[in-house]
Amino acid sequence: MADSDDKQQPKMTSSFWFDEEVTADHSMRMRMTSLKYDKHSQFQRVQVVETVPFGTTLVLDGKTQSAKNDEYVYHETLVHPALLLHEAPKRIYIGGGGELATARECLKHKSVEEVVMVDLDGDVVDVCKKHLPEWNDGSTEDPRLTVHIGDARSYLVEGSDTFDVVVLDISDPIEAGPAVHLYTKEFYDLVRQKLNPGGVLVTQSGPAGLMNHTECFGAIHKTLAASFRTVVPYSVSIPSFGSDWGFNVATDRGDITSKSLREKPPDATDAAISGRIRGPLRHYDGGTHLCMFNLIKAVRDGVEAEDRVITEANPVFMY
Amino acid sequence: MADSDDKQQPKMTSSFWFDEEVTADHSMRMRMTSLKYDKHSQFQRVQVVETVPFGTTLVLDGKTQSAKNDEYVYHETLVHPALLLHEAPKRIYIGGGGELATARECLKHKSVEEVVMVDLDGDVVDVCKKHLPEWNDGSTEDPRLTVHIGDARSYLVEGSDTFDVVVLDISDPIEAGPAVHLYTKEFYDLVRQKLNPGGVLVTQSGPAGLMNHTECFGAIHKTLAASFRTVVPYSVSIPSFGSDWGFNVATDRGDITSKSLREKPPDATDAAISGRIRGPLRHYDGGTHLCMFNLIKAVRDGVEAEDRVITEANPVFMY
Amino acid sequence: MADSDDKQQPKMTSSFWFDEEVTADHSMRMRMTSLKYDKHSQFQRVQVVETVPFGTTLVLDGKTQSAKNDEYVYHETLVHPALLLHEAPKRIYIGGGGELATARECLKHKSVEEVVMVDLDGDVVDVCKKHLPEWNDGSTEDPRLTVHIGDARSYLVEGSDTFDVVVLDISDPIEAGPAVHLYTKEFYDLVRQKLNPGGVLVTQSGPAGLMNHTECFGAIHKTLAASFRTVVPYSVSIPSFGSDWGFNVATDRGDITSKSLREKPPDATDAAISGRIRGPLRHYDGGTHLCMFNLIKAVRDGVEAEDRVITEANPVFMY
Amino acid sequence: MADSDDKQQPKMTSSFWFDEEVTADHSMRMRMTSLKYDKHSQFQRVQVVETVPFGTTLVLDGKTQSAKNDEYVYHETLVHPALLLHEAPKRIYIGGGGELATARECLKHKSVEEVVMVDLDGDVVDVCKKHLPEWNDGSTEDPRLTVHIGDARSYLVEGSDTFDVVVLDISDPIEAGPAVHLYTKEFYDLVRQKLNPGGVLVTQSGPAGLMNHTECFGAIHKTLAASFRTVVPYSVSIPSFGSDWGFNVATDRGDITSKSLREKPPDATDAAISGRIRGPLRHYDGGTHLCMFNLIKAVRDGVEAEDRVITEANPVFMY
Repeated sequence: MADSDDKQQPKMTSSFWFDEEVTADHSMRMRMTSLKYDKHSQFQRVQVVETVPFGTTLVLDGKTQSAKNDEYVYHETLVHPALLLHEAPKRIYIGGGGELATARECLKHKSVEEVVMVDLDGDVVDVCKKHLPEWNDGSTEDPRLTVHIGDARSYLVEGSDTFDVVVLDISDPIEAGPAVHLYTKEFYDLVRQKLNPGGVLVTQSGPAGLMNHTECFGAIHKTLAASFRTVVPYSVSIPSFGSDWGFNVATDRGDITSKSLREKPPDATDAAISGRIRGPLRHYDGGTHLCMFNLIKAVRDGVEAEDRVITEANPVFMY
Repeated sequence: MADSDDKQQPKMTSSFWFDEEVTADHSMRMRMTSLKYDKHSQFQRVQVVETVPFGTTLVLDGKTQSAKNDEYVYHETLVHPALLLHEAPKRIYIGGGGELATARECLKHKSVEEVVMVDLDGDVVDVCKKHLPEWNDGSTEDPRLTVHIGDARSYLVEGSDTFDVVVLDISDPIEAGPAVHLYTKEFYDLVRQKLNPGGVLVTQSGPAGLMNHTECFGAIHKTLAASFRTVVPYSVSIPSFGSDWGFNVATDRGDITSKSLREKPPDATDAAISGRIRGPLRHYDGGTHLCMFNLIKAVRDGVEAEDRVITEANPVFMY
Repeated sequence: MADSDDKQQPKMTSSFWFDEEVTADHSMRMRMTSLKYDKHSQFQRVQVVETVPFGTTLVLDGKTQSAKNDEYVYHETLVHPALLLHEAPKRIYIGGGGELATARECLKHKSVEEVVMVDLDGDVVDVCKKHLPEWNDGSTEDPRLTVHIGDARSYLVEGSDTFDVVVLDISDPIEAGPAVHLYTKEFYDLVRQKLNPGGVLVTQSGPAGLMNHTECFGAIHKTLAASFRTVVPYSVSIPSFGSDWGFNVATDRGDITSKSLREKPPDATDAAISGRIRGPLRHYDGGTHLCMFNLIKAVRDGVEAEDRVITEANPVFMY
Repeated sequence: MADSDDKQQPKMTSSFWFDEEVTADHSMRMRMTSLKYDKHSQFQRVQVVETVPFGTTLVLDGKTQSAKNDEYVYHETLVHPALLLHEAPKRIYIGGGGELATARECLKHKSVEEVVMVDLDGDVVDVCKKHLPEWNDGSTEDPRLTVHIGDARSYLVEGSDTFDVVVLDISDPIEAGPAVHLYTKEFYDLVRQKLNPGGVLVTQSGPAGLMNHTECFGAIHKTLAASFRTVVPYSVSIPSFGSDWGFNVATDRGDITSKSLREKPPDATDAAISGRIRGPLRHYDGGTHLCMFNLIKAVRDGVEAEDRVITEANPVFMY
């Protein structure tokens, strides 16, 4: 662009584009500079594409999972509110998390002694280690982290471990996608049994924008609310997803309410961060917390009005 | 889609798309069903397109101004925080506002006695009246509204009127666009002289997302801050714009601070709305207020770090 | 482009596109300036779109039928070789032909006394008359032309008329499209009975390019060859179709061979044109004839190797 | 597509596309499966992309040069008519030809004793050898071929060699592109001096379709006609180029005329091929020859009407 002899460059009349559908009638077009990896693993199609606006991007079954330029927004948003809700989390369970960036954020918490991560797809974990090493940022060297390849549900069923916080960093509930069973009441009941007293669950919960929050964000909220005493929805804009994105944090603790989270004084959040988290955060702080936990009216009303509870017998799929 | 004889329909292998660039490397594609109007006015290219995701959409010089399905988010966000900041606004000045939807929102305030709107482009006003009558929702019948076609700056310079609130609902500061002079310190100084004591100015302020807030959002904030005692930036996600969008509200009152707006109790906002505004709002309420006035850290830091003040001699243009 | 004050124009960052699929993996994108008509008729979706590269374009069920800038290539190619193959055609039957441009070309032949056109869809005929009057170029005023709205097959079955040349200007054989029954051996046998001695049939025959000639071009050829003594395939590049396009001319005359058509001296074609056709042609002449009747080896071999004969029981559909 | 468990696959909602502009208002979109190579060489941007419709494709400065699925059409069309025009060519000069496929075709001629190829860009030659080995098909092992990296013009100027046929397989004359000097009268005069008596020059000559033949096809023809006694234009449809493509063959021999080439009996071409060329050809034969040398009227008239002669002082650029 700033090339001094720009006039000497021939006009490029071709170009490569990564098109991602929001719906069949709406998509994002991102100029791409390379397609670094494109293979079918045992479970899904795994692609690593580099785009101009968002940098290196992991795409699973055609959906952007994380992009270099804004993955920190997603991963800080998923991890820190939940871990700070807990008094002093020691043992963390991550379901999914193949990019290893969720582990990276968990390991920043001084109280954390052990992180167990179970991702279904070893190829995804390997691809991320190789092509996106800055995403785990050395987490894999941290002796507190154990990575298992396998089914996140079976690991919980078969083991006797319990945890302080369970973080679900899994693909969207797409029909025939590998993660569809991890958004059901049956699964949330299982997680509840595996949480220590005072434990917290957080899950990514699909799109939460004005036009697309009805796909699954509310249904996941209501399903969690059928298992847990308190469930609080929140959202953040993720530019590479082309939408605001939803999360739900759930606990059986009685001293936490939606109202307390929605009106939490920024100073209190900032103090907790500086006391309990090593190193600076790029996204989450007291102001960001208020932005994320106060949904706009249309989305708030939509979540409230939702009446679907997702079960194995009555699944909900997003686009 | 739900057509019962769907199998009988031939596959459509062609399609019509409205592509809007976010940058040269990133765009949104929206399926369109008609192009209802497409002419050059004296000042700009005026198009009315209908898209599947966003409905009827006004496009000026290639940029979406308002779309049926989410225009209420934009217009409520522009108008209500500013008018509620004022104690009891009687006289409102709207610079721009061709869709007449900004006038519609102003007229909902019980205290308002007169709304003067000055838009440069009579064709835009006519097109909106004809093709988008639901946007003004009868405002043009309200005797409190006067619409002038002309330059928003000249009207203020030449007249002796003063106002309680000035709402700037104008095109983005694109190079050679008609509105570029309405984002300068010179113009803000003029507005300040035309405000009654306790008066408030609010202006749309361009994109305010993680990736694009540096285009002009911060510069407009800093320019206002060079004229006014208190200036508070805020933002909201507008899906048809493909981005979070920025606004700045400015006043010389000493009792208003950023902190007071960022931590305003939702009940206080809700009470003001129900006391001072006729009819239900679809978007703005106490929770939405907190969401909008608490910027995420990266944008907040970006606004703070900005050092450009826009003047006639040193203009700033967005993409 | 050559605008002298080009620097003053704001950059247009949005645009409207007509995308037409060649296959699911390959499409053409044409910048569009308006969508003039878009309705479902009783039989199909009828659209009139204006594009920069090809001008006003008729689109039926998602497929370009004719575009202003190159419709003459299609219509001259369909009509003149067949009519010149006949010694002195007086009575012409057009199946389809809604644009009225096929009639226009037939009426240029001095020998022609009557043209009967039967198109299924009255809306298409009306839309073309209204939006594309230059396509019929006054044909509808010519007393030799009669237009019936109805099924091209039923008209032949039910009437007792016979014709010198039958021109089939119908939609492609798309599954569930209205024209699929007009590409079968059963229909060709019917046409053969309705031809006077020395009669000629010509039909548009789908894409005939290197990559897509196997869709239906060869199958239509072989189906005709199961009914008629001599069938000669030919093709021409139609830019707005994004492909070379195929035609087949068929007759029971014994003095016409593929070889005679493929090696016809240009002067002979040019002499026939100037003797028998009123007014200048824009596309068809002796050189164009050789270009069109000499297929490239891959397509010629593909047609020869084809073994499908299309019947009501064994239909063939193109993409 | 035919995957038996197709129902089990999640819907892919993202996709990768190679868009190639025909003009700013018209482009082709091809689904791509990988971007195998993308670097700036010393002279141009070199990309190897794999698309579904056309296979592995070499792209230089944003323009498709050759694609696996139809490169044989381009290379046979460039080489065989010219070499068969010569009585018994022994020494061939290839200007450009980086894919090595032009050399491959030349080496099929039994009379050929030496092929000298001079391509500016060693990176292109290396990339093609590595990523597209089937394109040279072993040519590089043939002792008759010598490949020099350097400027095709300088090689001729500085050497004393003369040739029977000169084949110009070079990039289009794009402004600032590396090949622009190889389309001038000055260069053609040089080639003429380097041809042995009875020698033949052939050059690719840009797009030659109905809508784009005026870009440079005619101008290259007229420029050659200012140097050579006989110049014959011809064209062929190259699907991966999205257009008919033009070529010009030139000679000072008096016994060759446009008419003789346009009406050449197919048997004569077929006999020459079988007598003089080793192995079967996929594209060029007697019928294909007539197709290619008989331009459609609009293009023929356009070439005739052209009055530009390209010189160093008066260059012509295509889009």
